[in-house]
Amino acid sequence: MEQSSSCRLSFSSDYLEGAHPAIIERLVQTNLMQTPGYGSDAFCEAAREKIRAACACPDAAVYFLVGGTQANATAIDALLASYQGVIAPESGHINVHEAGTIEFGGHKVLALPQKAGKIRAEDIEVRAADFEADENREHMVAPAMVYLSQPTECGTLYSLAELRAINAVCRAHGLLLYVDGARLAYALACPENDVTLADLAALTDVFYIGGTKCGALFGEAVVVPQPGLIPHFLTIMKQHGALLAKGRLLGLQFDTLFADELYLHIGESAIMLADRIRKILREQGYQLFLESPTNQVLVVLENNRMHELAEQVEFSYWEKFDADHTVVRFATSWATRSEDVDALEALLSRR
Amino acid sequence: MEQSSSCRLSFSSDYLEGAHPAIIERLVQTNLMQTPGYGSDAFCEAAREKIRAACACPDAAVYFLVGGTQANATAIDALLASYQGVIAPESGHINVHEAGTIEFGGHKVLALPQKAGKIRAEDIEVRAADFEADENREHMVAPAMVYLSQPTECGTLYSLAELRAINAVCRAHGLLLYVDGARLAYALACPENDVTLADLAALTDVFYIGGTKCGALFGEAVVVPQPGLIPHFLTIMKQHGALLAKGRLLGLQFDTLFADELYLHIGESAIMLADRIRKILREQGYQLFLESPTNQVLVVLENNRMHELAEQVEFSYWEKFDADHTVVRFATSWATRSEDVDALEALLSRR
Amino acid sequence: MEQSSSCRLSFSSDYLEGAHPAIIERLVQTNLMQTPGYGSDAFCEAAREKIRAACACPDAAVYFLVGGTQANATAIDALLASYQGVIAPESGHINVHEAGTIEFGGHKVLALPQKAGKIRAEDIEVRAADFEADENREHMVAPAMVYLSQPTECGTLYSLAELRAINAVCRAHGLLLYVDGARLAYALACPENDVTLADLAALTDVFYIGGTKCGALFGEAVVVPQPGLIPHFLTIMKQHGALLAKGRLLGLQFDTLFADELYLHIGESAIMLADRIRKILREQGYQLFLESPTNQVLVVLENNRMHELAEQVEFSYWEKFDADHTVVRFATSWATRSEDVDALEALLSRR
Amino acid sequence: MEQSSSCRLSFSSDYLEGAHPAIIERLVQTNLMQTPGYGSDAFCEAAREKIRAACACPDAAVYFLVGGTQANATAIDALLASYQGVIAPESGHINVHEAGTIEFGGHKVLALPQKAGKIRAEDIEVRAADFEADENREHMVAPAMVYLSQPTECGTLYSLAELRAINAVCRAHGLLLYVDGARLAYALACPENDVTLADLAALTDVFYIGGTKCGALFGEAVVVPQPGLIPHFLTIMKQHGALLAKGRLLGLQFDTLFADELYLHIGESAIMLADRIRKILREQGYQLFLESPTNQVLVVLENNRMHELAEQVEFSYWEKFDADHTVVRFATSWATRSEDVDALEALLSRR
Repeated sequence: MEQSSSCRLSFSSDYLEGAHPAIIERLVQTNLMQTPGYGSDAFCEAAREKIRAACACPDAAVYFLVGGTQANATAIDALLASYQGVIAPESGHINVHEAGTIEFGGHKVLALPQKAGKIRAEDIEVRAADFEADENREHMVAPAMVYLSQPTECGTLYSLAELRAINAVCRAHGLLLYVDGARLAYALACPENDVTLADLAALTDVFYIGGTKCGALFGEAVVVPQPGLIPHFLTIMKQHGALLAKGRLLGLQFDTLFADELYLHIGESAIMLADRIRKILREQGYQLFLESPTNQVLVVLENNRMHELAEQVEFSYWEKFDADHTVVRFATSWATRSEDVDALEALLSRR
Repeated sequence: MEQSSSCRLSFSSDYLEGAHPAIIERLVQTNLMQTPGYGSDAFCEAAREKIRAACACPDAAVYFLVGGTQANATAIDALLASYQGVIAPESGHINVHEAGTIEFGGHKVLALPQKAGKIRAEDIEVRAADFEADENREHMVAPAMVYLSQPTECGTLYSLAELRAINAVCRAHGLLLYVDGARLAYALACPENDVTLADLAALTDVFYIGGTKCGALFGEAVVVPQPGLIPHFLTIMKQHGALLAKGRLLGLQFDTLFADELYLHIGESAIMLADRIRKILREQGYQLFLESPTNQVLVVLENNRMHELAEQVEFSYWEKFDADHTVVRFATSWATRSEDVDALEALLSRR
Repeated sequence: MEQSSSCRLSFSSDYLEGAHPAIIERLVQTNLMQTPGYGSDAFCEAAREKIRAACACPDAAVYFLVGGTQANATAIDALLASYQGVIAPESGHINVHEAGTIEFGGHKVLALPQKAGKIRAEDIEVRAADFEADENREHMVAPAMVYLSQPTECGTLYSLAELRAINAVCRAHGLLLYVDGARLAYALACPENDVTLADLAALTDVFYIGGTKCGALFGEAVVVPQPGLIPHFLTIMKQHGALLAKGRLLGLQFDTLFADELYLHIGESAIMLADRIRKILREQGYQLFLESPTNQVLVVLENNRMHELAEQVEFSYWEKFDADHTVVRFATSWATRSEDVDALEALLSRR
Repeated sequence: MEQSSSCRLSFSSDYLEGAHPAIIERLVQTNLMQTPGYGSDAFCEAAREKIRAACACPDAAVYFLVGGTQANATAIDALLASYQGVIAPESGHINVHEAGTIEFGGHKVLALPQKAGKIRAEDIEVRAADFEADENREHMVAPAMVYLSQPTECGTLYSLAELRAINAVCRAHGLLLYVDGARLAYALACPENDVTLADLAALTDVFYIGGTKCGALFGEAVVVPQPGLIPHFLTIMKQHGALLAKGRLLGLQFDTLFADELYLHIGESAIMLADRIRKILREQGYQLFLESPTNQVLVVLENNRMHELAEQVEFSYWEKFDADHTVVRFATSWATRSEDVDALEALLSRR
């Protein structure tokens, strides 16, 4: 079994492999050490310090959770009162692909039209102002937070100017700003990107730094720039089943990812290889579904061609384009090898 | 105080008055009777029998709740598994004006575009089929119910053909069909309407017959045509704070409304008077926002004109139309008097 | 039907009848008045003023809800964070007879041993101190509120000294104090009682004044002495299905109950008649289950005797005493007539 | 940092170390393999097959979750209707140390008195029968499940006869039986134990096989002997934030633990060493708090002695015994070394 699964060429996602070798090495070295549980160990503390430094936010509270849906559900539920909702793009992960965790916590997701996965400050403003002006607002869910992802579900990026504009609207209307950074390393590694970790710490109320898709075995680091914002978050994590007993596993991974700026660079090869795939696709006359600068490539395939390709390489279904075409996704990761893209190129050229 | 509030002409809603005089008389007569609690009394049983007969559904389970939001929240929560959601018109009451009760119960409202408050069988079909075909559906909220209102929020009506088409889609895709009848008496009293209580019992899984806006002091009758559908609903009502101690108050009101077909006719004068208001508005050159045949009249007013009118008659804010115009609602009820409409006519003509 | 149910002598509860005649008369007089909805009417405002005056608490926020379980569930959920629980007597209504509404809202009821329905300041102190000293407390539900009833489930009363002691423990440990006053009129009418409405306003964070069992058709008045304590409570009520459309029905009832000190005296006859029942029972050699000074009389009946009596008078099952005996309850109400107790006396003597 | 934390002798818990070396080796070997996500990979499938075989239950559904609290919260919530509760020992993990996750899911924990961490079939029977006989049961939380742990919180064991008796009561009263096996390996390795994995599969409706404390880095395997019992459990896991993206990490660990009967033997050294600690304590005249045959040793220490010892060895606080004494726990694990117990012996003797 150990080899068979890996025989096939796959670009189906960015969580196909284990972890960056430096993390595995560290796990091996520290395996029989004894540490206290639940995030109170020295690895977690060291990782917190490194993250605070990387975010230029020395007072930030930092919590380690296991997965992205869990991080979103736990932090958003902790921040909202029962009658408050969260504005999110229609295509947002919490609105579509988390099986209703936000509603399970009792809160409405207030979906906003998106363009290439992004929502605009103007539309948030209108939504907030409409609510405030609505004479029936006491009978309505109150918007209290804006959720967005960097990069977005589609792999696009918010610019610093866009984030600042959204931050300004949030401040003006008393909305919290939450950024889902499941693939944050791929934004940070992207030449087009002008939003740093320090910007996120300065502009958001909470954001998380994704590990699972960015070189860790698993794990996400939730950063709360103003440390008093969520009282008793550890207990809230426990209540959500989100407090890992051997927290040191998370601390160790983030401590490794934030040593020597690894996290800032770990996505670079993925971006280069995704750029190469985009170039190949264009040259071969394929239609890109949208322009995205990160590790996800969305392309429109004629259905027969799609089935043909699917026999030789794995990719993922995105959505129906029209009766004869489908949008599919090719994703690269920190672990994608140059020879994999060579092989893909051969497949894409052959027709 | 007793007179002052009623001095002003008001068409702001259909719950402005108390109850039909027959109900008040019955309350007075029975006040000192002793009855057991929680809906186990003879009034409730008699009302259930009359409702079963009116619905041509002799086995239906019938429960009496206090208000519409409560009825929706309790019944929908009782019917859905935690990971299931309810399809509703974007403008649906549960999606907009119930402060997130469905989400408080843990379920997502899956909003569908509406036209004049109505959703179409075809759109439900597409939504259900899309979900079934989505390769990520295990990570998504499963549509499990369709919610609609008869009449709709805007006062429009589903035809029997439309309801049958929706029922067919629901059966084909395993969706429950739930109808909110907060203003059902105004549908039943409407000449255009071709959907009877028996049709609702035959085509839906649960519907409720509105009392609060239809002649009762308060109360809604939840009808479950297949009686075993919701086990332990009484306990679920209790858990939702929706089980009235003196249930007989609800039984007595519905027993009165369903004696001598009162409920079938109680909305007739409201429809005639709403028709008169529509005629006046058209004659005076006002633009109706949409055509609705029931007791709600939505009209576009120029903002200055709106403020002018608001000094002399109460109506309710609906939504912004454009920078200079607003949509407002005039509602009639079973208690609206012909002379009130005379007075309104005078105001609308005077400009 | 109108007479049949009342033929039988019944002491089974205190919500068997409708409302005090003054309330019915007021309902009749005001029936066709038009008022705005959701508690914004003049009746509600007038009732709030009278309640504030009766509580010597001019700034109190006052909300009207429909029933006791609903009032408890809505107010307690509004006050607790997700990881906080409420200390209550093991026999407390929220712990036993509300079908888990508190848990439905996500909170644990932390049951404390009771004696005659009452919990003691010392036991609350120990519980709070134990939590604070527990090294695992971050993994535990945090006690954040104390719930008690006046009178208790068993009809007993907290003295002012006892309430003050509980208040002091609450203050010392940062616990909110909530008092369920479903039968409060029967406490206030009781000669033994030394706790006034003003005391409750001074010593609690929230309490409610029961209407349903105390002369109203239905309704409970939730009093929040410090008005800013629960932001957006109206929306929270809506979300819980606890906001009555025709709020004026509640306002009107409490306005009537608080005119001319009606509420302070409405329970007096019930207390006198309950005292008479206690006297009869003692004289006839029955064993009282516990000493309670209010309108509930708990007595131990030999099982055969119980079945014999049950053929002629209704009372309610309380709990099993031993293999041959059962505890039952006789309750009087504001509507109980002297001749009913005469009839009961005849039955109890005849054996 | 890498060494410092482990300098100190610690018996504070059984999750202090990483994983069994065989697991670490496997992680290293498979790190760069690509696998599909969410438990659909070949490692998970192989682990499921091995677990089914070990449980002699070829049709069982097996799900892998990350932690024990998460497993309990997700599975119990999936199995209970909203108005149903779960019977558990007062000292049960879900009742005390999971920060109210069961209540967060909306369900009441119905606590039953325990003895040495165990509840008895007779007491469950009485509780169920009392509910069924209670005339107010429709207003109460319905007991629908029994939760227990093997070994218990205190390290004690249910015998096969006891489990069969509990199973019989559950069947008779329509209760589900759920067993929390966080430390199951320490039961299976215990000479006194007569309950096999196959017995658990035959007698329970759901149980989980603990990994976190039993040789894995993290992870618990939820076993559902009758595979159709929880429809759509994968989506429910997702909604609870309990579906690990790289599910193969869990599959790989359980595949390793269930190869060559590793899981059945992994706790053996921990039991031998705990027995040695118990022997030492007895010989040195310490008072064991209770007799337990597994890897947890509860002992009563005089407070000064406790503080003295705490300077040289870590153990965990259990509960206050009296003013001068405290109960503390020494736990061994699969990773505890014989020389650690030698060192502890030296400390315990020296006084």
